[in-house]
Amino acid sequence: MTNTTQITDIAIIGAGPVGLFGVFAAGMLGLSSSVFDSLPDIGGQCTALYPDKPIYDIPAYPKITGADLIGALEAQAAPFSPIYHLGAAVIDITENPDKTWSLTNAKGIMVTARSILIACGAGAFGPNRPPIEGVQQYENKSVFYAVRSPEKFTGKRIAIAGGGDSAVDWANILADIADKVYVIHRRDNFRAAPENIQRMEAHVRTGKIKKIIPFQLDSLNGTDGYIQTVRVRDTDDNIRTLDVDTLLCFFGLVPNLGILGNIDLAIDGNHIMTDPTTGATNRPGIFAAGDGVIYTHKQKLILTGFAEISQAAHAIYAHLNPGRNLHHVHSTTRGIPVK
Amino acid sequence: MTNTTQITDIAIIGAGPVGLFGVFAAGMLGLSSSVFDSLPDIGGQCTALYPDKPIYDIPAYPKITGADLIGALEAQAAPFSPIYHLGAAVIDITENPDKTWSLTNAKGIMVTARSILIACGAGAFGPNRPPIEGVQQYENKSVFYAVRSPEKFTGKRIAIAGGGDSAVDWANILADIADKVYVIHRRDNFRAAPENIQRMEAHVRTGKIKKIIPFQLDSLNGTDGYIQTVRVRDTDDNIRTLDVDTLLCFFGLVPNLGILGNIDLAIDGNHIMTDPTTGATNRPGIFAAGDGVIYTHKQKLILTGFAEISQAAHAIYAHLNPGRNLHHVHSTTRGIPVK
Repeated sequence: MTNTTQITDIAIIGAGPVGLFGVFAAGMLGLSSSVFDSLPDIGGQCTALYPDKPIYDIPAYPKITGADLIGALEAQAAPFSPIYHLGAAVIDITENPDKTWSLTNAKGIMVTARSILIACGAGAFGPNRPPIEGVQQYENKSVFYAVRSPEKFTGKRIAIAGGGDSAVDWANILADIADKVYVIHRRDNFRAAPENIQRMEAHVRTGKIKKIIPFQLDSLNGTDGYIQTVRVRDTDDNIRTLDVDTLLCFFGLVPNLGILGNIDLAIDGNHIMTDPTTGATNRPGIFAAGDGVIYTHKQKLILTGFAEISQAAHAIYAHLNPGRNLHHVHSTTRGIPVK
Repeated sequence: MTNTTQITDIAIIGAGPVGLFGVFAAGMLGLSSSVFDSLPDIGGQCTALYPDKPIYDIPAYPKITGADLIGALEAQAAPFSPIYHLGAAVIDITENPDKTWSLTNAKGIMVTARSILIACGAGAFGPNRPPIEGVQQYENKSVFYAVRSPEKFTGKRIAIAGGGDSAVDWANILADIADKVYVIHRRDNFRAAPENIQRMEAHVRTGKIKKIIPFQLDSLNGTDGYIQTVRVRDTDDNIRTLDVDTLLCFFGLVPNLGILGNIDLAIDGNHIMTDPTTGATNRPGIFAAGDGVIYTHKQKLILTGFAEISQAAHAIYAHLNPGRNLHHVHSTTRGIPVK
């Protein structure tokens, strides 16, 4: 394990656009930042999912690509010398007796921070894995928890497990291009939009979709990450074996262990509950901003995340400097540090 | 009076950066905007006060001038065809029986709007004028309510009226460069920072400042906008005449008549009270955003105003379309209208 020697004022979890602006907002208040991200590059989804796609709703940018947005935010953060720890998820957060926090990532890097600012978008939550032994060896080869490119599943024999919107929607979409689609659910009652349930039932009548009900996943059989059969079981221990090459599981999201699993944050569904004007969570010293948070009338916009993290930086300043007044000075008056 | 024939969804008061972004945020929801400003150009203070000064705290702009910021925001708003009514303050707002609003500006232009979005920064408030007949003829020539360039007062004989921070601070600053400084206050009890009151008393002991207490302004004498004497009066009707060429009045701010005077908005000090996540004021149909609003932990940043007005646009959509759900669609998916 590598321990950094210096204590950082803020450990920012998430190097997406909001986390990067957090470095700047904190820096303007004299606070230092270390930034963690499980992705190998800064920029979050802007870099990983849509670097070349134009974004239209960043104020004062009639049009900007994800890559250019991240480039600009990186330049804006640079004068404050953030330390980036990329390519490894945070796997442990521990509160120390002196009220600092120790964060450890999957590469074994440990950072001590005076506060934590979570800006990891949907990254605080991961797919709810089915409780099947050895499922990991099949993930992203023949077992998936999300569909990015449906055309990849053309001609496949697919088992879809789940009873919500995602299961029903993807069953309908893939019915048109797959060889076979099985929908495995523990009861014949789907929690999805009525019109999509009706569409699925129409596919069931034409034979394009086969419902495997009331069954649950039992085990997988395959080699080298590729499944050959999926075994399902009902409550009377009846067993069926489906001859499929692909399994899609839609069991919702659960908190990621390292980020949320051991710090007992108040969550609502799959979002962290925050105070809308400070970003404070239920844990003193832990703040959050961006798409991963929820409060009444929350808007999921990058812009909103920028404003939230600016407010959170001020709240962290107040938290770390009790009793000290922060006099607002406009950036036009003070400028920024020269590197 | 000119009446526009069309009803606009939103009358935005204030064409500064926040108001301009409001046009965009509203437009993305299919709402049309008319924009009022008392200044002759769009951009508010960015254009009027610091067009060439760099701003450092706009997200994704490490540095941008006020003029460039406004240019970008104007371009971003343009696809939504806002109608600008510039160079004339809003002087009347009236609620119509059908719940629309009629706004009239000083040029006599009247616009009917389904909602109002106030984004006028400090512009909702003006100086509290002394109740002296004919004071207007001296304003900005020899009577001032704010000091922009103190060096302009070098060698002047100055009367300062008021008992708060502004009166005390400017008395101290101008004592070093003016010929004479009188401080007129109705009692010998100043509501200012103790150290500044002490500084003023030190100036009083050395004769640099003369306190005229307990007196209030009575009348002005002068020609062509330039005062020659200021008459003051105490509660026993004793009169004194001060031989000065400049009068600075610091009696705080009061709501500007047209914008706030006749619509009964809840204010706190000199800010409009809003819900932090919707921009709603106490009046249904009137929303506000930007530097002119107040709520707990409000930050006076252009960025914060951007986020607030985006939230307000959504709240206006909900207000104008009760019961209709607004499904969030990312700008990357939908794009913007092509002109």
